[in-house]
Amino acid sequence: MRAVDIILRKRDGGALSRDEIRFFVAGVTDGTLPDYQASAFLMAVLLRGMTAEETAWLTEAMVDSGVRVDLGDIPGPKVDKHSTGGVGDKTSLVLAPLAAACGLVVPMMSGRGLGHTGGTLDKLEAIPGFAVRLSIAELKAALSSVGCAMIGQTDAVAPADRKLYALRDVTGTVESIALISASIMSKKIAEGIDALVLDVKTGSGAFMKTAADARRLAGSLVSIGNACGVKTEAIVTSTEAPLGCAVGNALEVIECLEVLKGRGPADVIDVSAALTARMLVLGGVAADDADGERRARGALASGAGLDRFRRIIENQGGDPRVVDDYHRLPSAPERHVVRAPRSGYLTTLDARLVGEASVALGAGRDRVEDHVDPAVGIVLAARPGDQLREGDSVLELHYRDRARLDRALMFAERAIGVGDTRPAPRPLILEEVHQ
Amino acid sequence: MRAVDIILRKRDGGALSRDEIRFFVAGVTDGTLPDYQASAFLMAVLLRGMTAEETAWLTEAMVDSGVRVDLGDIPGPKVDKHSTGGVGDKTSLVLAPLAAACGLVVPMMSGRGLGHTGGTLDKLEAIPGFAVRLSIAELKAALSSVGCAMIGQTDAVAPADRKLYALRDVTGTVESIALISASIMSKKIAEGIDALVLDVKTGSGAFMKTAADARRLAGSLVSIGNACGVKTEAIVTSTEAPLGCAVGNALEVIECLEVLKGRGPADVIDVSAALTARMLVLGGVAADDADGERRARGALASGAGLDRFRRIIENQGGDPRVVDDYHRLPSAPERHVVRAPRSGYLTTLDARLVGEASVALGAGRDRVEDHVDPAVGIVLAARPGDQLREGDSVLELHYRDRARLDRALMFAERAIGVGDTRPAPRPLILEEVHQ
Repeated sequence: MRAVDIILRKRDGGALSRDEIRFFVAGVTDGTLPDYQASAFLMAVLLRGMTAEETAWLTEAMVDSGVRVDLGDIPGPKVDKHSTGGVGDKTSLVLAPLAAACGLVVPMMSGRGLGHTGGTLDKLEAIPGFAVRLSIAELKAALSSVGCAMIGQTDAVAPADRKLYALRDVTGTVESIALISASIMSKKIAEGIDALVLDVKTGSGAFMKTAADARRLAGSLVSIGNACGVKTEAIVTSTEAPLGCAVGNALEVIECLEVLKGRGPADVIDVSAALTARMLVLGGVAADDADGERRARGALASGAGLDRFRRIIENQGGDPRVVDDYHRLPSAPERHVVRAPRSGYLTTLDARLVGEASVALGAGRDRVEDHVDPAVGIVLAARPGDQLREGDSVLELHYRDRARLDRALMFAERAIGVGDTRPAPRPLILEEVHQ
Repeated sequence: MRAVDIILRKRDGGALSRDEIRFFVAGVTDGTLPDYQASAFLMAVLLRGMTAEETAWLTEAMVDSGVRVDLGDIPGPKVDKHSTGGVGDKTSLVLAPLAAACGLVVPMMSGRGLGHTGGTLDKLEAIPGFAVRLSIAELKAALSSVGCAMIGQTDAVAPADRKLYALRDVTGTVESIALISASIMSKKIAEGIDALVLDVKTGSGAFMKTAADARRLAGSLVSIGNACGVKTEAIVTSTEAPLGCAVGNALEVIECLEVLKGRGPADVIDVSAALTARMLVLGGVAADDADGERRARGALASGAGLDRFRRIIENQGGDPRVVDDYHRLPSAPERHVVRAPRSGYLTTLDARLVGEASVALGAGRDRVEDHVDPAVGIVLAARPGDQLREGDSVLELHYRDRARLDRALMFAERAIGVGDTRPAPRPLILEEVHQ
């Protein structure tokens, strides 16, 4: 088998065999396939596409490039959730403890934030002492004792994905449904889970700008998961505005704790409960969505979710006293309020621009090697649909550095739209995608 | 300017600016652009195409990656011819001396054969002593004294093309009209010529399998040449059967000498005269095609072409006695005759298969590093349309090695088709392509 023949077949719009795809991924993994052949192949895939079958084979080959965690000796259904990334999307920190409190085993491997969207690991690391780098043995011990661990991807999982992603980033081959799907699913399938719920985001703050693209990605992800033996479903959610009222790592941890205490913004509660319900149904713990929602909201009301989060923090070396004392979390020394430029209704609070403002403050990364400041971020004092008088507070920027504030304000001020008509409320959950 | 942005624009079907194309080619030439970005770009170009303007800019940038020969101090119109490569295509060895004898300056830089088509340099090197590696100073001296030099490309000409071609070969990005055009034309424009006649071949023995593809390539080449200040025309010629009766290096040199002596196969004479005529018209030496043909055939009849070829050989260190004594050329020790399997008309003599048989004998290369045997090859004892009796000789294989003969016979026997109806004669020159 020759790499150039595989490239030629895909270039000419043909479908590849399982063996050809495995040959290709194995060559990328062990370095015998040169980068220049890999990148020509990636461009051909981006422009020609892949069938559902090819995409599943690609995913499987990427899983097999590394370790597949074996959770067979841990009792209970293993279920995870993955989000394609939004601004203010902190549902993982709510639903993972809720799902564990309801009887699921949740081996959650997450990534760091890049660009305007935040990352679960960055949020968790705002908690003093919280360790996200666990070995696979430590992961299994955590799952046995607490039912949940929230960790970073280990180098042992899907090394082919890391190599391909680095190449895609510099060769203009990121935006391929097939390649995005295989990248996401290879890492999730390697976790050794039984079921997976996906939150595919669409809108200004998301990677998929249109609902149609988000639906295509959701369909591809669900198809791969089920083809690879993982019960998989997706919901498509809108992210025109940030989710909840906090953007930034420590600020988002506080909001999650508020939600787990039965307070917090309704949208975070609703999306977290809906996702937890789907996890419970797929894991066989709940009979249907209504039963799942009842159980999830019950674990919120009883404090079982909060208690589980405290145990997760404790188990991973974090300071559990943050749950009751938010002053133990890092906080920024300065505040700056962005006010309504005129009276009217808040029509827009652009998620992407709020996200960019947050990155400018230091809460996220423009480049992989950037340092993240856990304390800084943005608190939303108003939400789209709210009535405002000129001068009312809309965004509160928590900052450390004046120059960074100035950069952030260029985004933050453009994020706000005020009009004379109250905008129609938009649904958050747009649709569910099943096999 | 970032390479990834250029890749993205081409990937999405956009047209690139002159500066973007120059940035890209400069990066390839000086090695600052990694191969993996170059190959992703090449695949995007292959699948998305380039406008005529982009292709001309790409050609110009590739010319400027190296030396552009300045022939301004040599009097007379500088005109060259390029063929896209066929089986038995030895017209260069006929028309270059003819054109020089008629008053043109012919600075012919050629390549070596690869695959089933032969290369002009390999044919010339069958002449004992003939040196194809001349410096630019030696080239100019040869043009001043003899009016023609037939040499290999120097490393100083279009280095970007060499790097890109090596990459295209292993990344499935050879078959792009834009990339093929820029590769051919950059080397020709760098010769410092005033005019160029192209022979774009189509059919089983050619790179372009269909007349439509050949016409598109011809149009692209003509458009680039004229955009870059070189008067350029093309003819599209058919190569279903080999041209002439000899395939193989020394055998083809003999056939060329026969043509220059006023003998030799009619098809070689006709195509050589037609191409020479176009060169003379473009160079301003002939008033029109008819005048050009008259002059070309005059130089054949008078022996002026033969005399010029003798001087070219002498000037480049070759043994001029081969002109009168073919025994001074290498010849193979053994002969094997492939005979007509039945009586009837020779309907097919597949150029590609005859070419493959010739490569199998050792007359050509499967890989760049292969050694070529100047002595071996194939003589056609019959041409399509000829009436045959069972057992009549069709192909005479001149071989050195029994194992190679056996491999060659697998191609040679399949190349022959015999039927009951005389095939309609096909025109050799299909059309002319002007600006």
